[in-house]
Amino acid sequence: MGAVGAAGLGATVATATGPADGENGTEIEPFHGVHQSGIATRAQAHATFVGLDLAADVDRQRFAGILRVWTEDAARLTSGTPSLTDSEPELAHRPARLTVTVGFGPALFDRIDRVDRRPPWIAPLPSYAIDRLDDAWGQTDVLLQVCSDDPITLSHAVRELVKNVRTQVSIRWVQNGFLRARGTEPESATPRNLFGQKDGTENPRTTEDLDRLVWDDGHRYPWLAGGTSIVLRRIAMNLDTWDELDRPARESTTGRTLDTGAPLTGTAEFDRPDLDATDRYGIPVMPPGSHVARAHFRHEGERFLRRAYNYDVAPPPGQVSDAGLLFAAYQRDIHEQYLPVQNRLAEFDALNQWTTPIGSAVYAIPPGVVDSGDHLGRSLLE
Amino acid sequence: MGAVGAAGLGATVATATGPADGENGTEIEPFHGVHQSGIATRAQAHATFVGLDLAADVDRQRFAGILRVWTEDAARLTSGTPSLTDSEPELAHRPARLTVTVGFGPALFDRIDRVDRRPPWIAPLPSYAIDRLDDAWGQTDVLLQVCSDDPITLSHAVRELVKNVRTQVSIRWVQNGFLRARGTEPESATPRNLFGQKDGTENPRTTEDLDRLVWDDGHRYPWLAGGTSIVLRRIAMNLDTWDELDRPARESTTGRTLDTGAPLTGTAEFDRPDLDATDRYGIPVMPPGSHVARAHFRHEGERFLRRAYNYDVAPPPGQVSDAGLLFAAYQRDIHEQYLPVQNRLAEFDALNQWTTPIGSAVYAIPPGVVDSGDHLGRSLLE
Repeated sequence: MGAVGAAGLGATVATATGPADGENGTEIEPFHGVHQSGIATRAQAHATFVGLDLAADVDRQRFAGILRVWTEDAARLTSGTPSLTDSEPELAHRPARLTVTVGFGPALFDRIDRVDRRPPWIAPLPSYAIDRLDDAWGQTDVLLQVCSDDPITLSHAVRELVKNVRTQVSIRWVQNGFLRARGTEPESATPRNLFGQKDGTENPRTTEDLDRLVWDDGHRYPWLAGGTSIVLRRIAMNLDTWDELDRPARESTTGRTLDTGAPLTGTAEFDRPDLDATDRYGIPVMPPGSHVARAHFRHEGERFLRRAYNYDVAPPPGQVSDAGLLFAAYQRDIHEQYLPVQNRLAEFDALNQWTTPIGSAVYAIPPGVVDSGDHLGRSLLE
Repeated sequence: MGAVGAAGLGATVATATGPADGENGTEIEPFHGVHQSGIATRAQAHATFVGLDLAADVDRQRFAGILRVWTEDAARLTSGTPSLTDSEPELAHRPARLTVTVGFGPALFDRIDRVDRRPPWIAPLPSYAIDRLDDAWGQTDVLLQVCSDDPITLSHAVRELVKNVRTQVSIRWVQNGFLRARGTEPESATPRNLFGQKDGTENPRTTEDLDRLVWDDGHRYPWLAGGTSIVLRRIAMNLDTWDELDRPARESTTGRTLDTGAPLTGTAEFDRPDLDATDRYGIPVMPPGSHVARAHFRHEGERFLRRAYNYDVAPPPGQVSDAGLLFAAYQRDIHEQYLPVQNRLAEFDALNQWTTPIGSAVYAIPPGVVDSGDHLGRSLLE
């Protein structure tokens, strides 16, 4: 990840303090590899998640055609090369770490006659009492996740990917998210959500952790080796009622300080929360109902990768805001890793008073494309 | 403009090749000055335009209160200082060239009993046959234009500005726009729209041109000295039918080459279009119906400042995209400068086949706030 410079872009030099003016745009995330990019990739500033349903006549063979087109388009666009049918090539020359990630929803396995290869965790999540799910943000056949540090590059790439298969798919939803712009903060800073909280502090980061927690080893489902899964939840955040809380109440609710992101039992962001610590009166320092106390993994097997984006769209009439989080979680096994945490949060999380899940979908993320003879999803389709 | 570093942010150093990693966020556009910022300011990557209507009981005195709050909030937020009631101060520390610009719609002058001070050009534009205007994007009492290179800073600033006056206003619309991210391209590059065209090549740039064309001198309306006006048009762009055109057809339609942006009568972007040039058969080189031929000023008095943003929002069911341009034009006198051009384009512009105005509003932009004892709009209200 993070390679700089590529054929056709001219030589660029990144220094320890970041690329020179105008050269963020030339940074490339390699498309080819054993894993799809856009997951272990340091989060880009902008993301668009597109939920697509296949047209009625798309069978395995036609779907393979779609995936071949996307593979070709993605390989080109992510390297700063216009797509083969690109009618705005001038918008394609600055990839700005563009990534394209494709996922397969549960019904896709039926459609392409591969039910036996569907992992049991590629299925709807349980119904939770906290949910107010709207099918407008619900499960689709296919997911396109496209991320870039540049919003024009992103808009153009999404359009190229969708328009080239437009007769074979319909768009159910488009969800746009954002983080800090590239260069606003040092690259190492943990992103914040619109409640002001740091989000993703406990993420697995080492290759060993990612291999253990995120990337499938193909043991049960050989086609999925190098792949993973995504749970995408659209979580509305009520900024108006959150505003009524003072800072101590907010910090008790989340279990972390708002400024540094340190757990209430520590002094620095990356201190491990100590759920057993008590004060001199024997009262837990970390409120047992706080978000951290409920969300924190009970054992290593409950860890997964969070890669969330903020959303903030035009509010409905009479409202001041429509904002929240596109919560994206990546893990090998949703049942083993994600659900225990989600179940605890749904049972109780002090933060639930201000957050409402309104969209939910899960997808298998097939492995990456290793070379130019390969295409996305080949191991599942062939 | 473009000052770097400020109290509370620590020392930062911008070099000829741009700020070091993580320091774009500390760049400040000064709030105080004879003009409001966000107009002559080099366009930031992101913009949010908010159309607000005043509650029924807001009179001149109460409106002055709103403007005092906005003045205080804007002065703080644009310098990287949380607002006085900021509940997410951690989101305020990276202004990333944040600007806040306030405008007054035609009905505002009635509301605050200042009809005699309303310039005649602060009025609805004529109806055009090309328009398909939706009141959902229509004229409001007040405009907030907020721009930043960082989308979190922008989201937070808009929220702070709106929430602090929420009982006295209602939001009619929120329009989010984007250009290239800071650092994707060299700062001097002219932005492109989603048709791939460079947009704004002919803009006035020198202080002399801005003083002559954009900033009011107060001769007719003393309160407006240092102010200007904005025409904000939401123009849907049909990317699907535009896709059907090949490059020569596109370039004949716009009158410029797509790669360099040079007029068809020249070789470089900033060459002046020669509307009289003919080829050896006597045929005009610049098609008389092309966008450039129709839009180009016929005399200096028809020039104005374009500062447009792209939009690309979730498409309605069955569609592939909902994209276009938030066309923002700034000029001293809409009747003298803007209307002659708009009238010509409405009469004929080859580009009209692919573009549709769906929103339209005009606002007077009062002068800037010179010092901390001043507030936005004071010269009109007192």
